[in-house]
Amino acid sequence: MDEKTLRELLRQVRAGRLTESAAIERLRHLPFEDLGFAKVDHHRPLRQGFAEVVFGQGKTPGQVAEIVRSMLVRKGSGHNVLVTRADRRTYAAVKRLARGAKFHPLSGAIVIERERLIRGKGTILVVSAGTSDIPVAEEALVAARALGNRAEAIYDVGVAGLHRLLGHREQLTEARVIICVAGMEGALPSVVAGLVSAPVIAVPTSVGYGASFGGVAALLAMLNSCASNVSVVNIDNGFGAACVASCINRT
Amino acid sequence: MDEKTLRELLRQVRAGRLTESAAIERLRHLPFEDLGFAKVDHHRPLRQGFAEVVFGQGKTPGQVAEIVRSMLVRKGSGHNVLVTRADRRTYAAVKRLARGAKFHPLSGAIVIERERLIRGKGTILVVSAGTSDIPVAEEALVAARALGNRAEAIYDVGVAGLHRLLGHREQLTEARVIICVAGMEGALPSVVAGLVSAPVIAVPTSVGYGASFGGVAALLAMLNSCASNVSVVNIDNGFGAACVASCINRT
Amino acid sequence: MDEKTLRELLRQVRAGRLTESAAIERLRHLPFEDLGFAKVDHHRPLRQGFAEVVFGQGKTPGQVAEIVRSMLVRKGSGHNVLVTRADRRTYAAVKRLARGAKFHPLSGAIVIERERLIRGKGTILVVSAGTSDIPVAEEALVAARALGNRAEAIYDVGVAGLHRLLGHREQLTEARVIICVAGMEGALPSVVAGLVSAPVIAVPTSVGYGASFGGVAALLAMLNSCASNVSVVNIDNGFGAACVASCINRT
Amino acid sequence: MDEKTLRELLRQVRAGRLTESAAIERLRHLPFEDLGFAKVDHHRPLRQGFAEVVFGQGKTPGQVAEIVRSMLVRKGSGHNVLVTRADRRTYAAVKRLARGAKFHPLSGAIVIERERLIRGKGTILVVSAGTSDIPVAEEALVAARALGNRAEAIYDVGVAGLHRLLGHREQLTEARVIICVAGMEGALPSVVAGLVSAPVIAVPTSVGYGASFGGVAALLAMLNSCASNVSVVNIDNGFGAACVASCINRT
Amino acid sequence: MDEKTLRELLRQVRAGRLTESAAIERLRHLPFEDLGFAKVDHHRPLRQGFAEVVFGQGKTPGQVAEIVRSMLVRKGSGHNVLVTRADRRTYAAVKRLARGAKFHPLSGAIVIERERLIRGKGTILVVSAGTSDIPVAEEALVAARALGNRAEAIYDVGVAGLHRLLGHREQLTEARVIICVAGMEGALPSVVAGLVSAPVIAVPTSVGYGASFGGVAALLAMLNSCASNVSVVNIDNGFGAACVASCINRT
Amino acid sequence: MDEKTLRELLRQVRAGRLTESAAIERLRHLPFEDLGFAKVDHHRPLRQGFAEVVFGQGKTPGQVAEIVRSMLVRKGSGHNVLVTRADRRTYAAVKRLARGAKFHPLSGAIVIERERLIRGKGTILVVSAGTSDIPVAEEALVAARALGNRAEAIYDVGVAGLHRLLGHREQLTEARVIICVAGMEGALPSVVAGLVSAPVIAVPTSVGYGASFGGVAALLAMLNSCASNVSVVNIDNGFGAACVASCINRT
Amino acid sequence: MDEKTLRELLRQVRAGRLTESAAIERLRHLPFEDLGFAKVDHHRPLRQGFAEVVFGQGKTPGQVAEIVRSMLVRKGSGHNVLVTRADRRTYAAVKRLARGAKFHPLSGAIVIERERLIRGKGTILVVSAGTSDIPVAEEALVAARALGNRAEAIYDVGVAGLHRLLGHREQLTEARVIICVAGMEGALPSVVAGLVSAPVIAVPTSVGYGASFGGVAALLAMLNSCASNVSVVNIDNGFGAACVASCINRT
Amino acid sequence: MDEKTLRELLRQVRAGRLTESAAIERLRHLPFEDLGFAKVDHHRPLRQGFAEVVFGQGKTPGQVAEIVRSMLVRKGSGHNVLVTRADRRTYAAVKRLARGAKFHPLSGAIVIERERLIRGKGTILVVSAGTSDIPVAEEALVAARALGNRAEAIYDVGVAGLHRLLGHREQLTEARVIICVAGMEGALPSVVAGLVSAPVIAVPTSVGYGASFGGVAALLAMLNSCASNVSVVNIDNGFGAACVASCINRT
Repeated sequence: MDEKTLRELLRQVRAGRLTESAAIERLRHLPFEDLGFAKVDHHRPLRQGFAEVVFGQGKTPGQVAEIVRSMLVRKGSGHNVLVTRADRRTYAAVKRLARGAKFHPLSGAIVIERERLIRGKGTILVVSAGTSDIPVAEEALVAARALGNRAEAIYDVGVAGLHRLLGHREQLTEARVIICVAGMEGALPSVVAGLVSAPVIAVPTSVGYGASFGGVAALLAMLNSCASNVSVVNIDNGFGAACVASCINRT
Repeated sequence: MDEKTLRELLRQVRAGRLTESAAIERLRHLPFEDLGFAKVDHHRPLRQGFAEVVFGQGKTPGQVAEIVRSMLVRKGSGHNVLVTRADRRTYAAVKRLARGAKFHPLSGAIVIERERLIRGKGTILVVSAGTSDIPVAEEALVAARALGNRAEAIYDVGVAGLHRLLGHREQLTEARVIICVAGMEGALPSVVAGLVSAPVIAVPTSVGYGASFGGVAALLAMLNSCASNVSVVNIDNGFGAACVASCINRT
Repeated sequence: MDEKTLRELLRQVRAGRLTESAAIERLRHLPFEDLGFAKVDHHRPLRQGFAEVVFGQGKTPGQVAEIVRSMLVRKGSGHNVLVTRADRRTYAAVKRLARGAKFHPLSGAIVIERERLIRGKGTILVVSAGTSDIPVAEEALVAARALGNRAEAIYDVGVAGLHRLLGHREQLTEARVIICVAGMEGALPSVVAGLVSAPVIAVPTSVGYGASFGGVAALLAMLNSCASNVSVVNIDNGFGAACVASCINRT
Repeated sequence: MDEKTLRELLRQVRAGRLTESAAIERLRHLPFEDLGFAKVDHHRPLRQGFAEVVFGQGKTPGQVAEIVRSMLVRKGSGHNVLVTRADRRTYAAVKRLARGAKFHPLSGAIVIERERLIRGKGTILVVSAGTSDIPVAEEALVAARALGNRAEAIYDVGVAGLHRLLGHREQLTEARVIICVAGMEGALPSVVAGLVSAPVIAVPTSVGYGASFGGVAALLAMLNSCASNVSVVNIDNGFGAACVASCINRT
Repeated sequence: MDEKTLRELLRQVRAGRLTESAAIERLRHLPFEDLGFAKVDHHRPLRQGFAEVVFGQGKTPGQVAEIVRSMLVRKGSGHNVLVTRADRRTYAAVKRLARGAKFHPLSGAIVIERERLIRGKGTILVVSAGTSDIPVAEEALVAARALGNRAEAIYDVGVAGLHRLLGHREQLTEARVIICVAGMEGALPSVVAGLVSAPVIAVPTSVGYGASFGGVAALLAMLNSCASNVSVVNIDNGFGAACVASCINRT
Repeated sequence: MDEKTLRELLRQVRAGRLTESAAIERLRHLPFEDLGFAKVDHHRPLRQGFAEVVFGQGKTPGQVAEIVRSMLVRKGSGHNVLVTRADRRTYAAVKRLARGAKFHPLSGAIVIERERLIRGKGTILVVSAGTSDIPVAEEALVAARALGNRAEAIYDVGVAGLHRLLGHREQLTEARVIICVAGMEGALPSVVAGLVSAPVIAVPTSVGYGASFGGVAALLAMLNSCASNVSVVNIDNGFGAACVASCINRT
Repeated sequence: MDEKTLRELLRQVRAGRLTESAAIERLRHLPFEDLGFAKVDHHRPLRQGFAEVVFGQGKTPGQVAEIVRSMLVRKGSGHNVLVTRADRRTYAAVKRLARGAKFHPLSGAIVIERERLIRGKGTILVVSAGTSDIPVAEEALVAARALGNRAEAIYDVGVAGLHRLLGHREQLTEARVIICVAGMEGALPSVVAGLVSAPVIAVPTSVGYGASFGGVAALLAMLNSCASNVSVVNIDNGFGAACVASCINRT
Repeated sequence: MDEKTLRELLRQVRAGRLTESAAIERLRHLPFEDLGFAKVDHHRPLRQGFAEVVFGQGKTPGQVAEIVRSMLVRKGSGHNVLVTRADRRTYAAVKRLARGAKFHPLSGAIVIERERLIRGKGTILVVSAGTSDIPVAEEALVAARALGNRAEAIYDVGVAGLHRLLGHREQLTEARVIICVAGMEGALPSVVAGLVSAPVIAVPTSVGYGASFGGVAALLAMLNSCASNVSVVNIDNGFGAACVASCINRT
């Protein structure tokens, strides 16, 4: 029931063609979205960062292309389109739809930039520990930008070589939100969070072997961080971290 | 090496009593804190929310009292004092030091309010699922307030009774940060995060039995939330959630 | 907003004192329960088996008594009252409120019978493996009865002594729903389910030691049952099994 | 020992050619199935839903075809044949045996419909959270139908977008049994179960990554559901859920 | 249906008072135990080692005493009585029933010796690693003897002091079955099994701390033994090991 | 140092060419194997069942062939040769060395029979639950025979169809050792062990999906068996079970 | 067989009273320890750090006292005596035997110093993260000293306050072995190891709650350290770390 | 800020062109590395064993070659170059850059030897249990040598065949550090450590199946070793063990 229907109902009430009781009964059984609730959904992409997102993993190039096409033709939406965890074949399929689509091969992210509006108030800084963590960090970086934020990255500043991290202290201090990506022992967020007063979103990665258990070691370390400005998202969830950071940065 | 020492060193350089090389050598071995780095530490309580905090668990009433006393006498600090996870005996010991100390028996939090300055820009809303989650929720609520935030709470709005939660939609929408506390299946943060655009800090609780595994079920659910504005802290870590929320709210 | 308020709103529309647009706007922000949705909640105790339930664990005798008292005085409700996981002290407190309250010491269940209406269509049969599983089995049995079902129990029919189980074949065949309670290797539900065509609700118990891991061994066994009419509830959750069974039995 | 043998034995007793004691001794050692017990087995396909089922996973097209052929030629059985977790090559092999075989590519289910008798009393409703959960949901749907039930499905109603779920409230209320399929945080069954009074069979899926641990997060969430009309089957076990639901629906 | 009933049935057949068909029908529905199957049960204590056993853990002194009394008065049974995991108070209660009851305080085993018949063909040797493993080892030793075996023990021969173990090589070689009890790294069974050709029953103990996880480390080590004559029982299950060993030794 | 060397040493002592002290010193540093200890090793293949065994998994056909060749040419050994977990290509390579090599495709076992001596005293019976467990069961069966035992198998007697199992009661009773192979809920060993007095070696298999966790569910179930004559080997370890069984059967 | 016996044997050979063959035969059956192997054992306390150690946990004051007494009276040993994980009652019992016994209440270590010989070549430095880690750190410190090492400690230098740690850089650089004790996220060893070139022994502690899982989070972090000079001991095993460190320091 | 900049600053102070306060302020904000801290980094390869290391796993031949090339051309460094976990294709790419590059196919290690300086004081001995553990053992061996140590290996000395291990007692005793590599039950380090006084670095391998859980069984066993001179590194981390051993051996 859209607004029109509701308006019609009220009109009938006013015209006396519908009794109060009948109107109440019909209102009682309205699907929720008919009462404006559905608007929440329309606000949804907005809320999640002013971008349309496709989770590419497990989808064929054709499937992704079809979803992207429907996003591009949707009237009145000029948001950026982000495809995560895609490969070159998917990129080729998307590029056929949108010439300007850009591929980020490390993370597999594809971005179709349709607006350059910066909505975030400050800078989101993505910090990562080892070279193997870069794919996840890049996913966070690309997503943060696609969601309308100024975002920068510092890579390869692991805790066993503190001086490299400390050399970036100024940049760390200036960030409004920090996304901290680390595999193995997952110690970076604790160290970084101790240096800043901004909220730190920790992203464990599945980088490692043996007792890293696909990122569990890093995840547990981050959940147990002795720094009090750290919260955690799922293993390898660079995109999720960007969403949370973006949502904080827009506040 | 405090500033005085450094000043003296430079003075000797200027007076020609110390060669450049010797000065460089001495500077090279300066402990880091001597060069202003230690200031970070002084900024620390500030960063963590304008309050001094004692983790009460595992400490005797005497030990807690001693720490609190040292906080109270420290010059120039008028921050609130928060003791978490204390019991009535500890409260008695603390009350002897500060008449105005208040005890929150559900969470075991003790607060000595020494300032009422609101530093957070918006409201932190604490939402919890079941009555047994209230102790953790209360810890978050009390901590959020002690850290200088406006904070409110909605208790007992579990996902199996949606209408109760939906009845608070306005309050949910208005919060700047939401702390969402839930044990058992830990589904509440996903549902809440779907209704708002604010960042949601999820706190799993150890409430439950059997396959809840002391909060692991809720923790995993929250890490896997299908809502994209959710990040997670450790099981039962109401205080930590308040710190993260406070740190977002001050930005 | 109750019906009255809604009726008033419509009346104003009819009377022309409220424009359609204003009415729509107000309807849009109605709390859900005001539109009949809240009725779901009133139906809730009904749905859960025509009984009011208090989860006794972790509550003081005083707290349980208070909750029970509020249930007893609630107008228009004559449902049975069930307190689970209580002890003798809690029983004493409840008995003071309701002379007829009955205590089941093995499971710690307290029942205040206020009606004897049988709502379930068939018999719920509770089958358990070892003597140590009886507390959980009894919780299921007592709850099933309090929820308005005919319910019977067969105890101590472990799979290592098949003949005992097979001796009850007739009773098994006649049950409409079977609750099967077992700890240790949790094999009983598979064997029982192979003998009947009724749905079997499997309840793992925390009975065992070492590699039973507090019921995990039994839980996993049940989830992997090779019989296709088995579904599972949480470890030690006799009450939950009774709810599911009752809900099936009323259908 | 078939009936004939038993009859012969009794005849010898009657004829005095066999003493009571000798007869008793021989009866004592009868294999169980000889006394009618084996009939249970003949009842088995019946019990499991009036269909013959082949678990296709790990079997070659040739192996599946052979089993299906033996089912088709078995005298007196006109039940539907269901092959689960098959691929197109297996489908091709089956289709050669039965022209009418239908393939459901998302779930890999193959159905040879040989009867359209509806044995279930009500409707089984399959509800699933995300698009990636559809294969498991489809397996449940197809199986429920093959087992002689009216079955419908609602896809893509995750808990982070409540309004979509709530829009189907009528359908939910009318179902006699609900199968609720969800991966990631596995919250859907709790929310759905809170809206209905029918039994809800929860199926965790292995959809997700990182801390979803192949469906464990969803499984634990479901086992800890705060709704009391939820029971759980194994991860990805859409077929099992359909069996349990079918078994409840026939009662 | 006992033998008498069956005899009566046959008599009626013989007398022509019962048709073959009616007799068959009645036989078909006989509970299994009525056809001699129950005899298996009577053989049970026999099978398990010619002793009556009470699992003392979680039972009150009174409950244990009651069970023991019923064992002692059972006609025709002169088997030893073994109570495992009891304490001194339970022992006092048992001693009142049987003067000769003996208590083994390390393991908490109580034995009432009523026969001294050795049924095992060889010697069962119990070998344990550390002093803290002795309670479990003693349970195995006492049980093995109560079950009618010659049994000996070698304590405190951990793998980090090989010479002590090797000094017992002769005794190891002569044993017919070896029970090998070890906590911590659980390496002893592998080493012992490499020295002998007898079957080795490995018993992990919950001795240890931290990453021993209550015996899991030892359990896993034993399941992965590189020696091929090792099989494993549950953590701390000294009694179970004695049963298996006894059952092998009687063969 | 072989016997000859030792003899020479003693000769020198006798001849006075070596002082006692020097002799003692040299004896003190003797490698252990020189004093007969190494004999243990020669006994080893003997102890393990009179067969030479190659673990084929992870080895190339060439590598396996090389090892087998060295076994075949070793003087004085006429034991059977067993290769486990091989494939057809490995079989081809082995067959070139030994015409009579036989391949068991389900388990991947290759046997070169060089002797038919039965050393085991009774029959080893391999019982398995589902068709998918057959590869592991076959490995146990083939190994048991290669190790010099009479061995038989009963396949497909799962606990959800008891009558099939009970139909083999006689065979079960007559076995001297039973190897019980089961995946999923791993309940078969408990049921089988309750029917016999022989030792039961339980082999969990990795058959299953979801919460079977690659055989962990079955493993835990078996370790927690309520039957007292069950011990357990590693997941899928059919060969290991055959070794233990063979070692019991030879006693 | 001690040296005397061996000497006698050789004498008999020399005297011709024992044939070579008989001598060989007797030598062949010598228990290993008789050939000097046992000396390894005498060297054992030496190897483990020149101290006698009693693991106090789980032993009564009387039991500990008895063991200590036997150590004190053993001739020719003047090593220090260390009791770990004791309480005041045990200390009282030990003090009665040795006036000079010293108690370390945080760790529960008791030391009876009988020599002050420093055997380690450099300094062992114990570094710990939080105040709650001090008991484990103290156990390491006290043990390292009792084992004959120079040992120092730096407490409370967690990674979220880097400047504190960095202020001790000189002390870190000078240590020959570092023991690094940390609970929660266990990040300290990685950071410390990145600052030094000495071997770092990491000790996870069970300090923490929720997802620290009794020290598992810290243990995993340490096993996955990105620094390459880190090895790990069991959770809370301060004593073990001291042994390893001492053993490195003596080399 | 390099030394030159610092020197210039001091010159300005001396010349009076910069006030003390201004100088202090600028010093306060110096990036850490400018003050010599970065030197730690230059020392880093030195500390880690005088070799440049590339972790080959997950890198393409081209990527590895590029990194190696940059190492070879770096001025003033003549250290050995070690690539771990490479394959033949990577080797081919590296060999094109350095003729003398050597490939170790079992472990996948590539070594470019550029110096033969032995820096370690004693011998590092690598001991491994089974043939399948050799890849990890070889990685440790090759790395230990590339890092400037004398290193030897003993393979295939599992604990179920003690005599083989004991035959190497002399070699074990003479080693300065022992690396002990074992999969399955991981018992070897405990046994080896009991025979020597040198530090033992235990390396669990992922060799095994079923309940070895990819090396977890061996890892836990090693962490729980009853020998006190054992510390542990990550599963399969042969390189890490060599680093720790090398770092001990250089002390």
